Amino acid sequence: MLQNINISSRKRIEFLDITSQVSQVVAKSGIKQGLACLFVPHTTAGITINEAADPSVVKDMITKTNHMVPKDEGYSHMEGNSDAHIKTTLVGPQLNVIIENSELVLGTWQGIYFAEFDGPRNRKLYVKLMQG
Amino acid sequence: MLQNINISSRKRIEFLDITSQVSQVVAKSGIKQGLACLFVPHTTAGITINEAADPSVVKDMITKTNHMVPKDEGYSHMEGNSDAHIKTTLVGPQLNVIIENSELVLGTWQGIYFAEFDGPRNRKLYVKLMQG
Amino acid sequence: MLQNINISSRKRIEFLDITSQVSQVVAKSGIKQGLACLFVPHTTAGITINEAADPSVVKDMITKTNHMVPKDEGYSHMEGNSDAHIKTTLVGPQLNVIIENSELVLGTWQGIYFAEFDGPRNRKLYVKLMQG
Repeated sequence: MLQNINISSRKRIEFLDITSQVSQVVAKSGIKQGLACLFVPHTTAGITINEAADPSVVKDMITKTNHMVPKDEGYSHMEGNSDAHIKTTLVGPQLNVIIENSELVLGTWQGIYFAEFDGPRNRKLYVKLMQG
Repeated sequence: MLQNINISSRKRIEFLDITSQVSQVVAKSGIKQGLACLFVPHTTAGITINEAADPSVVKDMITKTNHMVPKDEGYSHMEGNSDAHIKTTLVGPQLNVIIENSELVLGTWQGIYFAEFDGPRNRKLYVKLMQG
Repeated sequence: MLQNINISSRKRIEFLDITSQVSQVVAKSGIKQGLACLFVPHTTAGITINEAADPSVVKDMITKTNHMVPKDEGYSHMEGNSDAHIKTTLVGPQLNVIIENSELVLGTWQGIYFAEFDGPRNRKLYVKLMQG
């Protein structure tokens, strides 16, 4: 059961809350328990889980990420997006979420974020469900 | 087989070696081979695997993490723990460990750490075992 | 089905493209769909997925990682490789890749990198295949 979620980012760097899209994939699959493996097939976008209640958390994360890995810093790669590749490796391209009683098991404040680092672009997320 | 491990941190930032607790969950489950999916259901704590022999490794990791992402740096989020959210995304909230012969497969020097970034608190770790 | 890939690094810090080795393990296994859990059993090396086409991407990643976490910075750990432990936790020791139609499912530009942070050394990567 490999499925795609389509994502459209609107800014260069943007954390998009995709919790409801992932939940829908799980709900439609009929899977009762197991894992949802979330995989980003791009090299300038990652995936993370963090607070989904207060948008200032994500705002600070973007500001700090840019501070740590600035867009321009004498990089070798000529496409002007070396920072996005580095941010992707720091945040990571893959996460598993547990499924129990046909639902994602997330903490109270957690949401799943697609972390766009070189948008705006049309992106995909692969979702592979493992029963067990 | 979704199970909880209860964790109590005593400092604001602390790497707690939880290898033996995770091993016990695996041993009690009777699972012979597969994966242990370790998932932190909080937004200011993560999970990592690193050296468990010399405590100075973890000490350096905490010092450096604080240096890279200081507690106070003009963040927007008003709860005073933006640094903890950012550290959580950098370290990550989820890892899989392989199970073989009813045991966790870890390297000689590896231990599993619960990375507390906004303690002291009572925390949980979810452990989902997948047979296969 | 737990298998080893042997890796020999030649520099202290080096990102080795191991995509073809992992693909061979999957091909030989006969597994048609599921997950490949890639696990680094070392504490000074990690695993990541990033662009495999232009080598300047990896070059920038190494330069920037060294800039963020320098080799010498008054660390407590006396073995002189504290930076390597910290980099390992930031990059991460474990990733899953989806298997579909007996092949790894990767994006067009993606390659799997073994991230050596304290070489040159002989290293191992564990590959655990989960069918489903």
